[in-house]
Amino acid sequence: MALSPTNQDPLYPTERLIEAAHARIRPYIHRTPILTCQTLDKLAGAEIYFKCENFQKIGAFKARGGVNAVLSLTPADQAQGIATHSSGNHAQAIAYAASVVGTKAYIVMPDNSPEVKVNAVRGYGAEVTFCTNTPEERELTLQDVVARTGAVFVHPFNDYAVIAGQATAAKELVEDAGVPLQTILAPVGGGGLLSGTALAAHYFSPQTQVIAGEPEGAADAVLSFRTRQIEKAPYVKTIADGLLTYLGDKTLPVILDHVTDILTVTDEEIIAAMRLIWERMKIVIEPSCAVPFAALLKHKERFSGQKVGIILTGGNVDLGKLPF
Amino acid sequence: MALSPTNQDPLYPTERLIEAAHARIRPYIHRTPILTCQTLDKLAGAEIYFKCENFQKIGAFKARGGVNAVLSLTPADQAQGIATHSSGNHAQAIAYAASVVGTKAYIVMPDNSPEVKVNAVRGYGAEVTFCTNTPEERELTLQDVVARTGAVFVHPFNDYAVIAGQATAAKELVEDAGVPLQTILAPVGGGGLLSGTALAAHYFSPQTQVIAGEPEGAADAVLSFRTRQIEKAPYVKTIADGLLTYLGDKTLPVILDHVTDILTVTDEEIIAAMRLIWERMKIVIEPSCAVPFAALLKHKERFSGQKVGIILTGGNVDLGKLPF
Repeated sequence: MALSPTNQDPLYPTERLIEAAHARIRPYIHRTPILTCQTLDKLAGAEIYFKCENFQKIGAFKARGGVNAVLSLTPADQAQGIATHSSGNHAQAIAYAASVVGTKAYIVMPDNSPEVKVNAVRGYGAEVTFCTNTPEERELTLQDVVARTGAVFVHPFNDYAVIAGQATAAKELVEDAGVPLQTILAPVGGGGLLSGTALAAHYFSPQTQVIAGEPEGAADAVLSFRTRQIEKAPYVKTIADGLLTYLGDKTLPVILDHVTDILTVTDEEIIAAMRLIWERMKIVIEPSCAVPFAALLKHKERFSGQKVGIILTGGNVDLGKLPF
Repeated sequence: MALSPTNQDPLYPTERLIEAAHARIRPYIHRTPILTCQTLDKLAGAEIYFKCENFQKIGAFKARGGVNAVLSLTPADQAQGIATHSSGNHAQAIAYAASVVGTKAYIVMPDNSPEVKVNAVRGYGAEVTFCTNTPEERELTLQDVVARTGAVFVHPFNDYAVIAGQATAAKELVEDAGVPLQTILAPVGGGGLLSGTALAAHYFSPQTQVIAGEPEGAADAVLSFRTRQIEKAPYVKTIADGLLTYLGDKTLPVILDHVTDILTVTDEEIIAAMRLIWERMKIVIEPSCAVPFAALLKHKERFSGQKVGIILTGGNVDLGKLPF
């Protein structure tokens, strides 16, 4: 598909809109800590500032975008309830965001979703509707739910209010790191976090380049980055299950404008990076979250001696199914 | 054995000596963060302040006692080198402490020690001597090493400088919690951390009671607490392998004077508490570390509505051998 000049859209996340998003969501999210680790610095040959969104509300950065999107709706729209489909962190983010404004969330989840995730969503008072796990079924079931309830659909990433919310993680990172960062690394799935990160760096730390990490088993973004169109991955098979989606017409243009490069890593590299972070930093991160650090280790020479920010995106992992 | 009034000893950790220990070790340890978690508070019915010594140097609080003991030696003694026997965190603590003063560490380790622990000790430049894994062999091998090298032996817990060092964790906890704590919970093995914690509370937060958690499968301290003598456990079998030792003649008297109670928990309760902390707080802790939180969950009514500090002692766990 061809790209339109979407930054003419009045909702396009400008510097002012990202600042407004940050002020709006601040009471409902954690300002997560930045951790450093001498052992990992030595190993990587760089000075790394890890922004720990695994400690965020709901255990992932997605709380930022979800809360911003829901708080940005009119009271009348909020009162209708919020709907989405997700088997992962966006489901919890919307359930949490709806609870913040005291409205109902309706979440469509695949019928093979892990019980712990279903319980987490229900724990925020959301209503769960199951469907078989195909994109078509999820879409149809969501349409049914919206038709039945009148709830407002919030897309997991292809939504400017979501992107502006995700941008606040990198905004805090550059504000709190205490040093100027040469590079920020973030993972890419649908591109909500990556486009937000790139915009935050552009506005709040213009000397910082943003580079993405992507699993080889979901390598759609690296392809889209080259062809400048939304592409699907040549094949899909990765442990980083949070990064399976492809880009949207709102995220790709931002990425083309403001992201320097996209680096791919294998599942073996992801698992090794994840294990290093668990062992050395004593924190729990999910596989998708280890992708940028894996990319840094794979391309050490490129980042040698740099001050690098890495967004650790989430910590929601099934402890009964660890890859080591 | 009968107990002597050891607090007549000039090295007995007074308020002033613990303050001096804190000043001495400060450049070489992390002032670890205190984390809170609303979900766990709700579950426990208490307001919990977790002191995260899993983020400490070497991944455990033992860095405090080891560094204080080694820094407290005369330069001539330091130059002789430092020796100890340990398969666990004390080995790393002494190796690290020796590296801080630029001297040699000689560590006796059982020949079945996990490779990752041996490598960690060697990573600090220590010399490792292996022995078969019996208390007698460890003792004999240590004597050989000391005879050969002239190194100074630092006991893992029955040493006032070690106790004063461990006391600094609770000192920071009461200083940083921001609220008065009714209770501090700590695990008990040889009693170095527990006696230090009890003394720190006594001096720096006298309204705070200190209660210990102990595995049922290493229930010597609870027995010693009743008989007022050093006892061995009726049987030894627990996943909390950092807590297998029995008390010493320097730790028991402090515990009798300043600890309110000792609560025991089963391995099932330890594993469940450990999993909750990993899942909800997204941090890696070792099984021994989960014992106090397990005790809190088992005796909710006793701590209901209280502000409770918990010392999370360490995060050195073999990710390839998790109990879930």
